[in-house]
Formats: sequence, C-alpha cells, structure tokens
Amino acid sequence: MAESPITPRAQDFAGWYQDVVLQGDMAEPAEIVKGCMVIKPNGYAVWEVLQHELDTRFKATGHQNAYFPLLIPQSFLRKEAEHVEGFSPELAVVTIAGGKELEEPYVIRPTSETIIGHFFSKWIHSWRDLPMLLNQWANVVRWELRTRMFLRTTEFLWQEGHTAHSTHGEALEEVLRILDVYAEVAERVMAMPVIKGAKSRAEKFAGALRSYSIEAMMQSGLALQAGTSHDLGQNFGKAFDVQFQNKEGQLEYVWQTSWGVSTRLIGGLIMTHSDDKGLVLPPKLAPIPTVLVPIYRKDEERAQVLEAAHRIAKDVGAKVDDRDGHSPGAKFFHWERRGVPTVLELGPRDLASGKIVLKRRDTGTKEPIDQTALAGKLTATLVDIQTSLFTRAKERMKANTVLAGSLAEVEAILQDATAEKGGGKFVMAHIKDDPICDARLKEFKATVRNIPLVDAYDGAGKCIVTGETVDRRAVIAKAY
Amino acid sequence: MAESPITPRAQDFAGWYQDVVLQGDMAEPAEIVKGCMVIKPNGYAVWEVLQHELDTRFKATGHQNAYFPLLIPQSFLRKEAEHVEGFSPELAVVTIAGGKELEEPYVIRPTSETIIGHFFSKWIHSWRDLPMLLNQWANVVRWELRTRMFLRTTEFLWQEGHTAHSTHGEALEEVLRILDVYAEVAERVMAMPVIKGAKSRAEKFAGALRSYSIEAMMQSGLALQAGTSHDLGQNFGKAFDVQFQNKEGQLEYVWQTSWGVSTRLIGGLIMTHSDDKGLVLPPKLAPIPTVLVPIYRKDEERAQVLEAAHRIAKDVGAKVDDRDGHSPGAKFFHWERRGVPTVLELGPRDLASGKIVLKRRDTGTKEPIDQTALAGKLTATLVDIQTSLFTRAKERMKANTVLAGSLAEVEAILQDATAEKGGGKFVMAHIKDDPICDARLKEFKATVRNIPLVDAYDGAGKCIVTGETVDRRAVIAKAY
Repeated sequence: MAESPITPRAQDFAGWYQDVVLQGDMAEPAEIVKGCMVIKPNGYAVWEVLQHELDTRFKATGHQNAYFPLLIPQSFLRKEAEHVEGFSPELAVVTIAGGKELEEPYVIRPTSETIIGHFFSKWIHSWRDLPMLLNQWANVVRWELRTRMFLRTTEFLWQEGHTAHSTHGEALEEVLRILDVYAEVAERVMAMPVIKGAKSRAEKFAGALRSYSIEAMMQSGLALQAGTSHDLGQNFGKAFDVQFQNKEGQLEYVWQTSWGVSTRLIGGLIMTHSDDKGLVLPPKLAPIPTVLVPIYRKDEERAQVLEAAHRIAKDVGAKVDDRDGHSPGAKFFHWERRGVPTVLELGPRDLASGKIVLKRRDTGTKEPIDQTALAGKLTATLVDIQTSLFTRAKERMKANTVLAGSLAEVEAILQDATAEKGGGKFVMAHIKDDPICDARLKEFKATVRNIPLVDAYDGAGKCIVTGETVDRRAVIAKAY
Repeated sequence: MAESPITPRAQDFAGWYQDVVLQGDMAEPAEIVKGCMVIKPNGYAVWEVLQHELDTRFKATGHQNAYFPLLIPQSFLRKEAEHVEGFSPELAVVTIAGGKELEEPYVIRPTSETIIGHFFSKWIHSWRDLPMLLNQWANVVRWELRTRMFLRTTEFLWQEGHTAHSTHGEALEEVLRILDVYAEVAERVMAMPVIKGAKSRAEKFAGALRSYSIEAMMQSGLALQAGTSHDLGQNFGKAFDVQFQNKEGQLEYVWQTSWGVSTRLIGGLIMTHSDDKGLVLPPKLAPIPTVLVPIYRKDEERAQVLEAAHRIAKDVGAKVDDRDGHSPGAKFFHWERRGVPTVLELGPRDLASGKIVLKRRDTGTKEPIDQTALAGKLTATLVDIQTSLFTRAKERMKANTVLAGSLAEVEAILQDATAEKGGGKFVMAHIKDDPICDARLKEFKATVRNIPLVDAYDGAGKCIVTGETVDRRAVIAKAY
C-alpha cells in the first residue's frame, strides 16, 4: 500500500487515528457498505490474539461456546419493552428472501438476548439446568449514523455471553466475575488501564436492571467504554417465559446476565499506545513480537548476513524481513508503522563484532547486544515494553483526572479541554444516579462514564446537580 | 435434555441422523428462523477443533485471515453474469435499515467473491502485490428450500479462501494445494475418506472456470460434497477490474481462486461414523477424548473412589464425571450418545485390584487394564480408534462402489439402492463432461459427483450417454 505521512496527534487527533489505522494496514473503510470496514490481516491477527486471551478465560470460568441464528423474527424484539425501544432505530431488516416478500421480516441481530431467551425457555426447566453459561463469537449489525473504524461500525465482531442463574445473587456474581476478566485482559494483555464501575441508569443497556463497564482513557483524554456486563434481572426471563422449578418445587423466572467486548477494543488499543510514527502494539498482543532486518550492500555480504539472520531469528522466535528490492530503511519504516515491539538490525560489522542491534518501538532507543546474550535480553525487553506501556498509560490517566465540586466546574474543565488535540479529562464528581442529572451533562456533551466499584477518592459528598448526598464520585467525561 | 430412543439406521436413515444430532446435543432446529439451527456447545466444540486444524494448515501454506462486510450491495452480484444467476434465488435482502427504506438494497453474503473482488481491485496494482492469499471465517446465508441440520441450513458457518495470482498456472496450483489440505483434514483428522476430483461443468460454482471437490460416502451410500476449491479464472478479475502490471509493464487481469468448507463437515462426520447408539467421534476431533465414570454405592466408598478417579484422570487427561444424583449407567449412556471415544470405569473392586476398565466407543469392547499401564494403553487405544474408524469407512466406500458400462446399468444400480436405509452406491462410469449428459442422470436423481484426479480404474472408455471416448470414469451417485 502507498505510504503517506501520519497527521500528528497534537494537530488533529481524529485524523491521526485514521492515519494510524490505515498506515498500520489494520483496516480500511468499506465505503460501499455504509459504516462498515474491512479488517485487514494485520488488524485481524490482533483480533485473533484477543479472542484467544478472552476465550481461554471464559472457558476457565466454566463457559461454553455456542452459535445462534443471525436473523431474529422482528416480533421477538418487541417482547421486552425497553429493549425494542433501545434498538429499533438501529435495525437492519430483511424483508425479502428466496425471491419472495417475507410475511414476518427478520432483523439482523443487533445483540442476541431475545433469540437466546427463546431457546433458554426451551432448555431450562429445573434448578438442575442452572447455571447455564454460554458465549457466542459473532458479528452484529447496528445502523449507526456516525461511524469510525473499530470504534463504531455498523457491523462489528464481538463475543456475547449469555447466562441464566437461579438467584439474583449468583447472576450478580457472574456479572462482576466477567467484569474482572475484561479488566484483566485490558490491563495485563492490552496494557490499557481501566476503571470498573456501574453505568448510570440513564446509560444502561436497553432491557437491563443495571449495566457495568470498564472505561479507559484514550490519549485524547476522552473515555472509551471498552466492555460491558449486564445484570438483566428477570426482565428477559419474563419476556420469554424462562421459568425453572426450584429445589422447593416452585416455578421461578431465571436471573440472566449478558456481557460483551468487540473489535472496538482494537480502537482502544490504538488510541492508548500509538504515537506519531504509527501503531504501537504491546508485546502480548503483537502477532509478530520481533522482526530482524538484515543489512548488506554487496552480494558477497548478502549470503553471509542472511545465513546468520535466519539462524539468530530461529533461536529467538523473530521473523526475518528478507524481502529483496526494499532498503533496510524502508523495512524499518514498514515495521515501525505496524507497531512491531522490537526490531533487530544485523549487518556485516555486527557479524564481525558478534553484536546485534536491538531497537524498541515504544521508546525508539537502539542498543547493541552481544549475540550470545540476545535471547535473554529480548525476553526482558518485551516484558519491559509491556510494563512500560501500562505504566505510561496509567500515569497519563492519573495526570488527566481531576476533581470537581460543582456543575460549573465540571463544565469549565470539559469545555476547556480541547479533546481532539489531546486535552480531554476525566472529572471525578459527586452526581446522583438520576436521568435528570445525566441530562444536565449532555448540555456540554459529557456523560457519566461509570460509578467506580472501588472508591479511590473521598467517599460521600453532595450531588453537583441536586445537592443530595451520594456515596462516591462518578467518572464524568466526553467519550467516543 | 430429555433422552429418547434413537431410530435405527436400517429403519430410517434420515430419522436416525436427526436423532443422533439431537441426542448427542450437537444442534437443534431453530424453527422460528426458517431453515436455521442453533449449534449447541457439544457441536460447537467439534467445530472449534475443526477450525483449529484447518486454520493451522491455511497459515502454514501462507494464508492470512481477514474480515469483509456481511452486507453486499445488490448491484455487485450482477457484475458476474453466471454468479448472479446462480445465487439470485437464494438471497436474503435487507431493504430497510436505520428506520429507512434503502436506496440500494444489500444482500446478506451468500459467499464473498464479489465484495472481495471489489477490494482486490483497490489493493492489487503490481505483480509485487501477488499472490494475495486471504481467508475469512464467517457466516453466510442462502435461502434453501429443503434444509437439514449441519448438511444444509439457510445460515451456516464456514471459511472462504480468496486468492489472486499472476498466472493461471499458479492459481491452479493453489486450487489443488487447498484440495489436498481439505482431503488431509477429512482423512487424517475426521477419519472420513474422500475422493478428490473435478466437478462436471454442469455442477461447477456459479462464476468459476472449473470447480474441484472432495466427495465422501455416507453410511447410507449417498455422497456428500465435503469441500470445494474453485479455479475462477479471470472471471471475477474482469467483473471487478482487478488488474496488475506484470514484470514486463503490461496490464493483466489477475487469476483468482476461492475455496470453502463449512459446518456441513460435521454432518459428514456424523453420517460417516455414528451408530444406532448415537454419536461416534474420532479421537482427533473429540473435545473430550476420555471420560472417567467413578462407581460407588456406599458413602465410605465415594471419597476413596473419587480421590483415585481424580488422580488417575489428571495423569491421563480424562474428564471425571463426578455428578451426584446420576447412576453410573446413566452416565455411560450420556457419554455414549455424545460420542466420547473412550470411557474409563473405576469402582471399589478396581481400587483393590489396581485395575481400571477401559471401554471403546467404536467397538463397545471393555477391557480391564493395570492402572500403571493405563496412560500408554489409552494413547494406543485412541490411535487405534482413529485408524479403525478410517479403515472401516474406507472399506465401506470400497464395498459400495461399483462399475457400470451403460446408462441403464447406472440407473438400475441407483434405483435398486434404497439409500435411505443404507443401500446407496457410488457408480464409476465413463460419462462425457457435458451438461447434456448430466441431465440424463437427473432423471433418476443422480449426479456426477466428480471426475477423480487420480484414476483408480481402467482409464479411457466410451461415454454411457454419447458413446464418445472419455479418459476416465467419473463418480455417479445420489447426494445430500
């Protein structure tokens, strides 16, 4: 692909993001399908690593994968009043199939609570059938007006967990267990710090009793909702008549949960670590952690360097970029834009001295290493990059989080912050969980991101809108 | 789920198949979405093993995964004349999205040649961009009239490979390389013998120059097309204007291939190995290769048996079925229907004698083993089951393949064969690759399955329809 300059973050954050995605060859807009994108091999490889990390943890916590139909009878959505209201404006509807107008149209799943509710009602009869712990890897479609690659596309890839339990307590445990899994993958694998918390009632999933999220801060200072876990209560159980006989022989509605993360995570990853030179991947997510670029001018150097390059690369699990017709400089540039964490340089002089040059993508530093010490040094460097990226992101989040004691103060901070150039903030303020209060924040395009599960501040205080006492500060920010 | 008897194969093969799928808890019809099914955890786990086996081989042969949109502008399909004619009757069409009638409807992908052709034309400019070797794991929708779980459903899961090459020779190599990968997975992993061959022109993929398939024989004697690989020639290259500059600086259209296998393979797996007791899984595809059922009557036995059961199971990688409230008999029955290749039985008497009983799912034989020799014996048994299943299927295919020298003879053999009770045949006959000849077979509901790449018979002979000389016998059969 043609390589163009990357817009600096400080100049235009949104432009920078798009350039990083395109120049990193992660995805491109599918302009002929409204709001969709093509996930290119470099982007899909990262998604595969993420899938593996998540799927392993879902299975370790007792979940099984299954697959439910893409198409849902339109009437199903109407069975849960809030749900249909929330999703109706975003539906893609199949009205013709097999050359005929359908009597009842199907919607392409925007999420699968309804169709899974239908099957739960067929499968669940007794407390012995519970808990039922399912997950599905799938594509979903939500007709969004404003889209941006990875962050919000009309079709996206995700996993959706759907579980049924015999008590509300068990369901809530599940909701929080998964929130922990999400936070662990975000922080330990993606090196992206997150705040776990409850969404406000105004911002909860359509049909849930309560939603929980992990929220991350992008380099712009804007928030990204990176994963959600919903306590559905008995809402879908009642809508789809999912009843079970409890140990006492009485019929009860099940308590359900649902939870999901999507390809949106890749957008979060990019906006957390990448820089003005392009993509930066944390080693644990990098499909290729190390590339070795051989350097030679003359033909007689070529064979010798390549032989050593392949030998060393094999020892340390690196990929050799032995493409002919590309200069070493072009190769460094290529891998830099693709976010490869470590690049090795090996030339005739290195061969003579028994050295090899190791370059870090995150800091840009170069260091000559004894070839004999390379394996250990490389492992240590990859661990250090992973840790450094996380630490740096955490410090950035801390530095850009401020307290506010009044609505005017919140407004002043968020209006002052020129987010598209990197000046966004997380404002921690006391605000009552009441849609009336959320509405006041909308006036300056901010929202309650979540109410943290763990209060890292000063406990109770007066609501900046109503003056009533609330028990802890919430995260208020502009968001993607 | 409720356990019901399984219809014997000899009585009603189609009924038997459905019972095995349902009782093995592999899938169930999603009656509320026409022709769709839900893939349940037991079925999906098999699909995951298959995906892993295939994906590893695709990557080892240089392919990368990507993801293209689910929705395709309706006009795209019209760009390749044969393609639109082949797929039009089966399309599901989205006419409304985001609450509005769409100006141009989208079709849900029945396959992705057209949309990928569009992107190939954006990405491919020079011979340096070739070959382009992509694969996609996805769902597709084809509005089928007669559906059957796994074998033919309106939505199914599959992988579709799409590649572009600079010469026809390279494209053809790719087509056959993938056919080899498919045959290897079918035979070595699924233990399902297949015949590699070219489809007749009448049966080729809509838009291909030539299609190739692997064909398997089910226990009914009917054929199952288990995978296809298509030489698309320059048809899609011309339709989507995918041109590249060759080394001589001239513009040429690319040569493309596409290839796919789907969840249909699971149907083939079931109809190849399962029996009147239910599912039989070859060890290499079994998500759980071994289950240990502890046997105890009294409470004091329970602790001792369970302790030993978990210790032994850990050593040999078995799953202990330690569910209370189920008798050992019910547990044996449960795992038998789910096709687990080996079941271990451990009771108080075995503890005393240092033995453990090993039962094979394929033969039903039981054998007491010294606990100290179990690990080795179990490994050998799993290998033996894998081999035996393949040998048995191969012998069955051989026994049910016959030669015929005239159309009347082909008809007599296939009409005599009461396939739904297991009497189907593969008839090897000389038949010219001409749609007129294929049409004659349709009169008795048979088709040319393929023309084998390797001639295992007597070389050239006279066509049973036209009398012209053709160079080898084709496989003629009734098929799913």
